Amino acid sequence: MSETDDVTEGQDSGEEAKEDAYAINAATVDGILAAVELGAQARLVELLEPLHEADIADLLEQITTSERHKLLDVWGEEMDGAFLYELEEGVRDDIVEYLDDKVLASAMSEMETDDVVYLVEDLDEEQQEKVLESLDLADRVAVEASLQYDEDSAGRLMSREMVTAPEHWTVGEAIDYMRAHEDLPEDFYKVILVDPAMKVVGTVPLGTIMANRREKSLKDIADLEPRVFPVDESAEDVAYAFNQYHMISAPVVDGDGRLVGVITIDDAMDVLEDAAEEDMKRLAGLGDEELSDSVWETAKLRFPWLGVNLITAILASVVIAQFEAVIAAIVALAVLMPIVASMGGNGATQTLTVAVRALATRDLTSSNAFRIVRREVLVGLLNGAVFAIIIGIVGLVWFGSPMLGVVIGVAMIINMVVAGLAGILIPMGLERAGADPALASGAFVTTVTDVVGFFAFLGLAATLLL
Amino acid sequence: MSETDDVTEGQDSGEEAKEDAYAINAATVDGILAAVELGAQARLVELLEPLHEADIADLLEQITTSERHKLLDVWGEEMDGAFLYELEEGVRDDIVEYLDDKVLASAMSEMETDDVVYLVEDLDEEQQEKVLESLDLADRVAVEASLQYDEDSAGRLMSREMVTAPEHWTVGEAIDYMRAHEDLPEDFYKVILVDPAMKVVGTVPLGTIMANRREKSLKDIADLEPRVFPVDESAEDVAYAFNQYHMISAPVVDGDGRLVGVITIDDAMDVLEDAAEEDMKRLAGLGDEELSDSVWETAKLRFPWLGVNLITAILASVVIAQFEAVIAAIVALAVLMPIVASMGGNGATQTLTVAVRALATRDLTSSNAFRIVRREVLVGLLNGAVFAIIIGIVGLVWFGSPMLGVVIGVAMIINMVVAGLAGILIPMGLERAGADPALASGAFVTTVTDVVGFFAFLGLAATLLL
Repeated sequence: MSETDDVTEGQDSGEEAKEDAYAINAATVDGILAAVELGAQARLVELLEPLHEADIADLLEQITTSERHKLLDVWGEEMDGAFLYELEEGVRDDIVEYLDDKVLASAMSEMETDDVVYLVEDLDEEQQEKVLESLDLADRVAVEASLQYDEDSAGRLMSREMVTAPEHWTVGEAIDYMRAHEDLPEDFYKVILVDPAMKVVGTVPLGTIMANRREKSLKDIADLEPRVFPVDESAEDVAYAFNQYHMISAPVVDGDGRLVGVITIDDAMDVLEDAAEEDMKRLAGLGDEELSDSVWETAKLRFPWLGVNLITAILASVVIAQFEAVIAAIVALAVLMPIVASMGGNGATQTLTVAVRALATRDLTSSNAFRIVRREVLVGLLNGAVFAIIIGIVGLVWFGSPMLGVVIGVAMIINMVVAGLAGILIPMGLERAGADPALASGAFVTTVTDVVGFFAFLGLAATLLL
Repeated sequence: MSETDDVTEGQDSGEEAKEDAYAINAATVDGILAAVELGAQARLVELLEPLHEADIADLLEQITTSERHKLLDVWGEEMDGAFLYELEEGVRDDIVEYLDDKVLASAMSEMETDDVVYLVEDLDEEQQEKVLESLDLADRVAVEASLQYDEDSAGRLMSREMVTAPEHWTVGEAIDYMRAHEDLPEDFYKVILVDPAMKVVGTVPLGTIMANRREKSLKDIADLEPRVFPVDESAEDVAYAFNQYHMISAPVVDGDGRLVGVITIDDAMDVLEDAAEEDMKRLAGLGDEELSDSVWETAKLRFPWLGVNLITAILASVVIAQFEAVIAAIVALAVLMPIVASMGGNGATQTLTVAVRALATRDLTSSNAFRIVRREVLVGLLNGAVFAIIIGIVGLVWFGSPMLGVVIGVAMIINMVVAGLAGILIPMGLERAGADPALASGAFVTTVTDVVGFFAFLGLAATLLL
């Protein structure tokens, strides 16, 4: 098998194999659902066995709720609970609620405690209790300790399973210790050197240990100034540091500087991925929705932003209403006015997205803020001027009025400059005020460009055309 | 130092330290620029020395071009080129062009070859040649070999520095081999077992090697079916697999199944991060712009999408123009019509963002496509109905016409349903056609909701109100 150049081992390799290289493909899903329909437990286990738990989770997310429940029934006590960790929240809630206590307990018996923490933190209290009761006492204590840290903190992110060594040990002693211990963490990359008070003295990558003779003192080959995270550090800051400094693992310490856990890159990767997704969703006015949410849940989650948008749209209409007499006199204004607002909205969205992203990656700072604001205004001015000429000519040709061309052109320039200003200043202001720059920016910004767009265009028309 | 709970070692720790925890803060930048202004090389080196190369890159991105050139002049031959790898493209181009050949060669002399590949792949031919000439022959050959693989392929992503062992070796032999070799890769996590033809037999994590006795055969403790990537696999597929399966490193093989390199999680993390950022930018109609781009470059890159938007806005105006007579008769229509289009645009953006994200994470597949399309349409219907009632009442109260309320309410429902349909079907169609679903979706989708919004509202008004 090793010389295969196919990374989808254990999956069907039909025509779709290439297209859906890593995801569950339609043939696999159909086969599994057929086994479920027949109640064929042995066949189901045989089909699920070669799949990675992350793929099983995807499968459970993609089928309907009733198919999912049937599958769980058929799987029963043969279930390996690793997939629970991989599920999105909505489906996880549903499954934890649906499973009976005994199946849940046996499914979770082999999970590591930090995975259990991740799994239970989003459950409601009743379900959380149900999961906790299914754990043995030691695990339960560890899980409850982790749950005491803030959500989105280093304490929640860290694993308590780590390999430490007294600072005076040699390479040989460390190797002998590891050989003698059966229960090392599944994946670890560094040995953490500690003093008797459990304070971190340094870290030694496994590769470095391997490359040195047994007599070598660990302290001599250690990184004695490793980056260390306080347990209450925000998860997003941790993830930023992992990404910025290409870290692979880092010790976590409590308020007294004592080692309490270790964070590895895969945890950081999940946080980064989530943060980028969250910004993207917030810019589009989406809440914490998931693909498996029902129609009702989805509609409810999207309602607030649409409501905000309705208010801003009505505000824009109020501006238009001030110019009813002008529109009644020159109907061409009604035809052209959405163009100015639309272009402003688009220009503002461009700037806004750049600003939100740059704030998230910490590339937009007090050092370059002024320069970026100036750039956005000038870009608005430049593109505004070019589109002013184009739309001015369109207005002139379409309605035969040079003055109408001038009015729409000037309104375009004004609105594009305002779009650039609003697109950068609003997220920067939100960030400075301690709010999430992505959250309500879109609503504020389009309100500004709609109101300014209609007001500039219709106001100029009232002054110059009547 | 080890017991510190401050992760910003080596940085100024003034008032801003908390806020800008990991980034270069304003005080650091000011200090460095002051040293540059004075031409104080020793002081500059002293200030830069404690900074991570990623922070130095951020600094160089944040200052102006002329400050940057002055800094490079003062730094001169003391320069450590590691920061070059961390720069964004625009600034990297500028610096490579500005540096004289000798400084560039000495700055790059200690870089690993895969970093050099990443650095040169985006340079124009002349600059690439300049960099390649500065390398010694062996490195140059390795870099040129990597450049022959497609950009965005596993071959470009992989490093050639890896640790392999013959399949028949024991733990002891592997450890002895590593102890005898000074030039092991800086970070490695697995030993790759190969047969005499360099085909991959299995992989052994370092932790597992440590945990076993010297006599143990590596083959007995190896993962004999590791995920292996063909050298021409797309970088995005590789990154997806790393994320989905929580991988830390994986061998890369050529067409004959022979080991040619290894990909590690930090490479995959960069790809994922870039892919999410790209989707976000494309949804907002942004090209490959960077924060350091000039006004002129930025305006040029944003122009095309604004141009597309202008065309769609004019298309919407053409629809409005068909109803000039209706608007002339009832000016209230001009006041209210942007509301329907705006709500449709927002609803469509919500759906579109969900769809683009779900396609990127491979959660939207042929197995659940129908269910998701149905959900989006029903969400549009549900929210459309609620907002129809609200806006119907607004229309009635504001203009005192019950029929106007009905017209805007019905138009709202129609446009919200169409928004849901367009928001999901357009990106799915683009994906199926082999195009990037994020790329032009926004333009298509808002065209649809603008046109349908104005047409439904004004058309119904023409039928029912005149």
